[in-house]
Amino acid sequence: MLRDESGAVQLVHPRSFNEDGTPAEDALADTISGLAQGTFLTATGELKHDERVKLGGVEIKLDGLEIAAEAIPETPIAEDSSVDKRMDWRFLDLRVPRNSLIFRIQTTLEHAWRTYWVENDFIEVHTPKLMASASESNAELFEVEYFDTKAYLAQSPQFFKQMAQAAGFGKIFEIAPSFRADPSFTSRHATEFTMVDNEISWIDSHEDVMELHEKLMVVGFQAVKDKHGEEIEKLFGIELTVPTTPFPRIPLAEAKQIVSDRGYTVPRADADMDPEGERQIAAYVKETYDHDFVFLTDYASSIRPFYHMRHADDAGLTNSYDLVYNGVEISTGAQREHRVDVLEAQIRDKGMDPAELDFYLDFFRYGVPPHGGFGMGLGRVLMLMLGLPNLREATYLFRGPTRLTP
Amino acid sequence: MLRDESGAVQLVHPRSFNEDGTPAEDALADTISGLAQGTFLTATGELKHDERVKLGGVEIKLDGLEIAAEAIPETPIAEDSSVDKRMDWRFLDLRVPRNSLIFRIQTTLEHAWRTYWVENDFIEVHTPKLMASASESNAELFEVEYFDTKAYLAQSPQFFKQMAQAAGFGKIFEIAPSFRADPSFTSRHATEFTMVDNEISWIDSHEDVMELHEKLMVVGFQAVKDKHGEEIEKLFGIELTVPTTPFPRIPLAEAKQIVSDRGYTVPRADADMDPEGERQIAAYVKETYDHDFVFLTDYASSIRPFYHMRHADDAGLTNSYDLVYNGVEISTGAQREHRVDVLEAQIRDKGMDPAELDFYLDFFRYGVPPHGGFGMGLGRVLMLMLGLPNLREATYLFRGPTRLTP
Repeated sequence: MLRDESGAVQLVHPRSFNEDGTPAEDALADTISGLAQGTFLTATGELKHDERVKLGGVEIKLDGLEIAAEAIPETPIAEDSSVDKRMDWRFLDLRVPRNSLIFRIQTTLEHAWRTYWVENDFIEVHTPKLMASASESNAELFEVEYFDTKAYLAQSPQFFKQMAQAAGFGKIFEIAPSFRADPSFTSRHATEFTMVDNEISWIDSHEDVMELHEKLMVVGFQAVKDKHGEEIEKLFGIELTVPTTPFPRIPLAEAKQIVSDRGYTVPRADADMDPEGERQIAAYVKETYDHDFVFLTDYASSIRPFYHMRHADDAGLTNSYDLVYNGVEISTGAQREHRVDVLEAQIRDKGMDPAELDFYLDFFRYGVPPHGGFGMGLGRVLMLMLGLPNLREATYLFRGPTRLTP
Repeated sequence: MLRDESGAVQLVHPRSFNEDGTPAEDALADTISGLAQGTFLTATGELKHDERVKLGGVEIKLDGLEIAAEAIPETPIAEDSSVDKRMDWRFLDLRVPRNSLIFRIQTTLEHAWRTYWVENDFIEVHTPKLMASASESNAELFEVEYFDTKAYLAQSPQFFKQMAQAAGFGKIFEIAPSFRADPSFTSRHATEFTMVDNEISWIDSHEDVMELHEKLMVVGFQAVKDKHGEEIEKLFGIELTVPTTPFPRIPLAEAKQIVSDRGYTVPRADADMDPEGERQIAAYVKETYDHDFVFLTDYASSIRPFYHMRHADDAGLTNSYDLVYNGVEISTGAQREHRVDVLEAQIRDKGMDPAELDFYLDFFRYGVPPHGGFGMGLGRVLMLMLGLPNLREATYLFRGPTRLTP
C-alpha cells in the first residue's frame, strides 16, 4: 500500500517462479520484502483498472521502486497507545490517515472563512502577541523577559481588534495563536491555541455579531462537507450536518431555568453556566429544535468583562453571548461599549483602575463607531465536529502545563 | 467628506437664506459646523450625479446626520509627525487612507497566496510558538516563565515545518508571528513580525523551492495589481510591476564578484553579502535583466544553518538561496538535509551537540522524503512593494526593543 497526503493505492508485484516451482530470482521482490512500514519511496509501474480492488478500483503493477528514506521498522506507538505517548511521537501519529485528515479539514474550514471575509471586505490584521500589560485580567498571563523590562503574551487580540474599529477599518479578522498560563489539565484547555477572531463596526446589537457568526459556521461546515464529507463518514463514522440558520438563541437566565427544570442545578455561586449545564442545554436544544448549535445570550454583567456593552434598560445584563456546539462552549461574542465615559465607569465598576488602561481608553476618546465581535477556539470546533475526545487530537502540536515538546 | 473603508463621498448641504439675505435657521447646518474631523456618523440624503464633482462624479445632498461617536477636535499627530509619534497614536495614523490601504493590500496578498496553496493541496498548520529549546541558535531568544520551567518564543517554525514532512503532510503553509530578541534599531527589523512559511516534499533541489516561490510572488502581485493597482498609483505614486518568471538566479560567489567589479567590496570577513551588496546586485539585475527580484543561490555552508543540504560534490556550498526584492533580502529558502546521519554530522560540524537536538533528529530516524521550503517576512514584502521607508509603516502594531505599546 502506497499512501501520500492525497490518498492511497495498492501496489502489486506477483512473485515469479521457475519451471520447477521454486521462486525465481527477483531483486524487486527482495526489495519489497525488506521494506519497513513508513518508508518514503517513489514507485513506477502500470496503472491497472480492476473493479475487484477495494481501494478505488485501481492498482499499480510495479516496475520499480526508488527508496527516498528508509524507516526504522519498530515504531514506538501503536493504535492503542495513550494520547500522551502519541503526542511524544506526534510526527508518527500524524501519519495515520484519520489524524492527518483533521488538518486537511482545518485547512478547508479556515479557507472557507477567509474567503467569506475577503469577499465581504474584511481586512486581515496581525495583532501583536507581545504586550506591555494584560488584555483582560492579570491572571494566567505568561511573562516574557523583554530586554530591560517585562512583556506579556497576549491572551486574546481583544484590545487590538477594537483598535481597528477606532482606525476605521470597519470589519477585520485574524486567525492567530493565543496564550493562557492556565494550569488546568482538562480535555478542553491548552496553554497555546489558535483563535479565530472577528470584529465589525456599525452594529445595532450583539444580534448582528451572531448573524455573522452563524453565516461563517454555515459556509465553513458546507465547505468541509463538500470536500471531506465522505472521508469523515468513513474515518470518523460521522455524517456531518451543515447547520441551518438562524441558530436557536436562549437568554442565559432562561437556559439555567430550563436546565434546572430538567433536574440539574448548576453548582455555581455566580450567574454563570458550567460544563454540565452546557451539555444539558445542548441536549434540550437537540431534542426541541434538532440543532447542534445554540447561542446563550444576555449574560450578567457580573460575569462578563468590563468592555461588554450593558443593556440600555438593565445594566445587570450584557449584549453578549456564548456559542455552544455539541454541548461545549466554543466562542464568546459581544457588542462592545464604545462610549468612553460609560467604558470608564464600567472599568471602575469592576474594581479596576482606568489609569492602567489609558492607552486603550485613548482609542475611544477620538471616536469609535458601535462595534462587536467574537473570538472562537479553532481546535474546539474541530474537536466537536469530529467527535474527538480532547483538544490534543485537534492540535498540530499540543502545549499544556507539562508539555513543551516536540 | 464622508469616508469609510471602501472609499469617500462628498456630502453637501447648501445654506438657505431668508428673504432679507440673512442666513435662515438651519439645525442641520449648525450640526455640520460643530463636527470635528474623525466623527463617526450615519448620513442620509439623495445621491446626485454631477460630473463636475471630482470624487467619483457623485455627491449626496444631505437630509440628515446621526452622530455615532464624536471625536476630539485636536489630534496629537499631523502628516509631518515623526514615525515614532505616529506609532504612539497608531489608531489615528491608520485612519489616513494611504495607511489603511497597506492593510487592504496585505489582505489581498495573503488571500492570493492561501488560495494558491489550498488549490494545490497544501495543508495549513499552526505550529507552536512556545518551545522548550531554541530552533536555530541560542542567540536572540525571548525567555518565558512557564510554570516551574522556562520556555522560549519560536524564532521560526523551521523544525515544526519539517516535522510535517516526516508526518507525510507533503506540502504545508503557515502565516504566523515570529519573535527575535534582536536589540537592533534598523528600518528592517522588529522583535515580532509575521512570517510566511512553506515546506514541500519530494523536491530534487532548491530549484523546486524557488519555482514555487516565484509562482507565489506572481499570483500575489497580480491579485494586488488587479484589485489595488489604481489606488497604489494614486496614493503611493507607484505603478506596480507583476514580475515575470523565471526570476534571475545568481550564485552568491558570482554576485559578490559582480558587485566587486562595480567597485564595491563587501566589508565582511565571511562569505556573506551585506545590505549595500544586496542593493548593488539588485541594481545590476535591474540594469541587465530589468527585473526587481533576484535569487542569490548556493550560499557557503559556513554561513548557513546546519539543516541546509550541502552540494553533493562540494560540501562547502548549500542548496540554498536568498530572495532579494528591490535591493533588500526578503526571504531565505533551501533544500533541507533529510538523511539523519548526514544531519548529525552537520550538527557536529557547526560545533553543536546532537543530543540537544534529539527530538528533532527523531523526525528523521523514521524516514523523511527530500524536502525544502522558505520563510519570508510579510512586512518586508509590503514595505518594498510600496516603497515605504521602514517596516513600522507596514506593520499593524510595531514591536521593537523599546516599543510594546499600544
